[in-house]
Amino acid sequence: MVVELLSVGTELLLGSIVNTNARFLAEKCACLGLSMYSQTVVGDNGQRLKSAVETALSRSDMVILTGGLGPTEDDLTKETCAEVFGCALVEDGHTRKRIEEFFRNSIYKDIPKNNWKQAMVPQGALVLDNDNGTAPGLIMEKDEKRLILLPGPPGEMIPLFNGQVEPYLRKLKPGFLLSRMVKICGMGESQVEDALLDLIDSQTNPTIATYAKTGEVHVRVTASALDEEAAEKLIKPVVKEIKKRLGRAVYSVREEEDLETALVRLLKKHELTVATAESCTGGLLAARIVNVAGASDVFKEGFVTYSNKAKRKHLDVSKSTLKKYGAVSRETAREMAIGGAFATDSDICVSITGIAGPDGGTEEKPVGLVYMACCFKDQVAVEKYQFKGNRHKVREHAAVRALDLVRRTILENCQ
Amino acid sequence: MVVELLSVGTELLLGSIVNTNARFLAEKCACLGLSMYSQTVVGDNGQRLKSAVETALSRSDMVILTGGLGPTEDDLTKETCAEVFGCALVEDGHTRKRIEEFFRNSIYKDIPKNNWKQAMVPQGALVLDNDNGTAPGLIMEKDEKRLILLPGPPGEMIPLFNGQVEPYLRKLKPGFLLSRMVKICGMGESQVEDALLDLIDSQTNPTIATYAKTGEVHVRVTASALDEEAAEKLIKPVVKEIKKRLGRAVYSVREEEDLETALVRLLKKHELTVATAESCTGGLLAARIVNVAGASDVFKEGFVTYSNKAKRKHLDVSKSTLKKYGAVSRETAREMAIGGAFATDSDICVSITGIAGPDGGTEEKPVGLVYMACCFKDQVAVEKYQFKGNRHKVREHAAVRALDLVRRTILENCQ
Repeated sequence: MVVELLSVGTELLLGSIVNTNARFLAEKCACLGLSMYSQTVVGDNGQRLKSAVETALSRSDMVILTGGLGPTEDDLTKETCAEVFGCALVEDGHTRKRIEEFFRNSIYKDIPKNNWKQAMVPQGALVLDNDNGTAPGLIMEKDEKRLILLPGPPGEMIPLFNGQVEPYLRKLKPGFLLSRMVKICGMGESQVEDALLDLIDSQTNPTIATYAKTGEVHVRVTASALDEEAAEKLIKPVVKEIKKRLGRAVYSVREEEDLETALVRLLKKHELTVATAESCTGGLLAARIVNVAGASDVFKEGFVTYSNKAKRKHLDVSKSTLKKYGAVSRETAREMAIGGAFATDSDICVSITGIAGPDGGTEEKPVGLVYMACCFKDQVAVEKYQFKGNRHKVREHAAVRALDLVRRTILENCQ
Repeated sequence: MVVELLSVGTELLLGSIVNTNARFLAEKCACLGLSMYSQTVVGDNGQRLKSAVETALSRSDMVILTGGLGPTEDDLTKETCAEVFGCALVEDGHTRKRIEEFFRNSIYKDIPKNNWKQAMVPQGALVLDNDNGTAPGLIMEKDEKRLILLPGPPGEMIPLFNGQVEPYLRKLKPGFLLSRMVKICGMGESQVEDALLDLIDSQTNPTIATYAKTGEVHVRVTASALDEEAAEKLIKPVVKEIKKRLGRAVYSVREEEDLETALVRLLKKHELTVATAESCTGGLLAARIVNVAGASDVFKEGFVTYSNKAKRKHLDVSKSTLKKYGAVSRETAREMAIGGAFATDSDICVSITGIAGPDGGTEEKPVGLVYMACCFKDQVAVEKYQFKGNRHKVREHAAVRALDLVRRTILENCQ
């Protein structure tokens, strides 16, 4: 089954926003085993939109449209799709009630007149309740062709897709498609591919695909079978083999779990607290940990010690170390971690010091050079990295590696 | 002149990456006064790519293609475009030399055989030197139609566009198109639009368009004239009028300057230092300041005091304040800022304390409630916000508003 995406909105053509909806839907469709050969963006223009819908339907079985379902006259997606399928728009009583309900709970006193337009749906369409806005999702079917209409704001589109469109799509395909994500930190994409080459090449069910993220690699394993149990049986040994080959580099096999969430889970499991002492990352590392809801159980405090004076005052880095080895050195990183653990009375303290650039690099200590240390129960591990890229990239990579350093330290010491 | 975008790459169809190139190019084209009605994504498939190029050329004067210029057999953009225009591929001696040069400075000993493919260019094409990779950009012209081919990695595409494609496009259009960005913080998009409504409605040259960003609004003013001087003359009074109407909410009129960069510039101008004391943002605010190259001149240290104990120890927040008013309160924010300024001996200290969610909210103190304070020379300003959205959004908005609070404090006290 071939699906394609049609994003509707002049703001995309003007470059006002990034089309993150397309990435989300493309990955979802890939996971569901749907083939995608094209994605299109068109503006809020009836004629061009109609032509785009017709073209898409001529080459694909199904078109997922996002945007253009708002209450204004500019919003034409529903009207255009109804026209292409030759069906009338009729008022949906259930949706009308939901719109009334939505406004009753809002700060608006009167319901804007325009919004009643959103209760009109193409005759025969499947209406998908939108809990986060007034535009319902719609599924239209005709002659084995399908149009799926979703609102543009990701906060409305994503829950609608996950809750109602995905189950609908699953039912369309015979059998069951299941996928698992193996998340890896500390190895490059080509390293991961090398380690899994024979699996990637030989496997057809499940299939294996790698995705590079900042400082991470994600491996998606997708199996197709008659039912969920059979798919699970196909996936399980492959995921097990991948985990065996990559060892501790695998930080999670949970779809929704990112590196900081995995770390916070590990800290909670071992009832450990962590503190941070950052120089070049300037709070980025602490902010990643605090990203996790409930981080307060394991994270109490962090220091951003950007100046030498601050490193000495809060982390007790010695004057002679700073003078002899410099602020960006193995020795300073070590003392920052030890000092931070002591100052905060945390079980673990992780430190980062480096040269993020664009200035400050020398031949001996070039831009991208970063030292990080992790102090855990009187033991200190220090690591040296040479990151590539601009200031932003160097700092992001450093934060990722520091999160992973803490994770590996716990795994090595707490089993 | 009508332009459209064609992004080539199976990784986009699989949802492995977000199409940030399309946003960048769309905004650039809008600034250059080019009309865009369509954007398309296709995979690395010769037949479908050819059909997409032909379709695009049939409805637009110019197509900008990104991706598919790499050295592997999958990369077909150049070959396909040459086929569509009916021209041969010939080796470009200059590009061949540049590829040799590129590899001489790299870690590779031998030049991969595949890479010679990148020295082949369509006969008659304009070759654009790529300083960040081995694939040159290409501009092909035929019968008033144009194809512009750029490599997919943004780190190669953006410098190529800015340095060579933009000047080329400027020459195509008679006259000169100039645009200025007015950047605003502390007002919503509809507030800004209300304040500028008559200008937006009445102006045709320059035109005025608003863009909403997280916690910010950007207003682009674009003028078309015979030359740069004349365009500047058209833009100047409009930008002046906008600045007059929006007052201190305007933080910059420099295209490349973001909020933290504007703040660091202001701090340097007044020779002031700033410190941070963060609870719910957990380092996000400090990290924004350290984003700016050269921030070390004005930012020495910051605290992430997530626990009450840390607030007391490092920021000297009194036990009774925490007990009486709670950690998320006007009073705690105030004491955090005062304590942070004292502890760091900085001219300014800005503090944030709030409930980022999803848990921890009450009827009295709901999720999204954030207090922030700015201590400057014995004066403390405290502000209360109720942000919408998830944990991530609440924290991001809080960091933006805190940067702006410092900015406004300086403007009010240092003129």
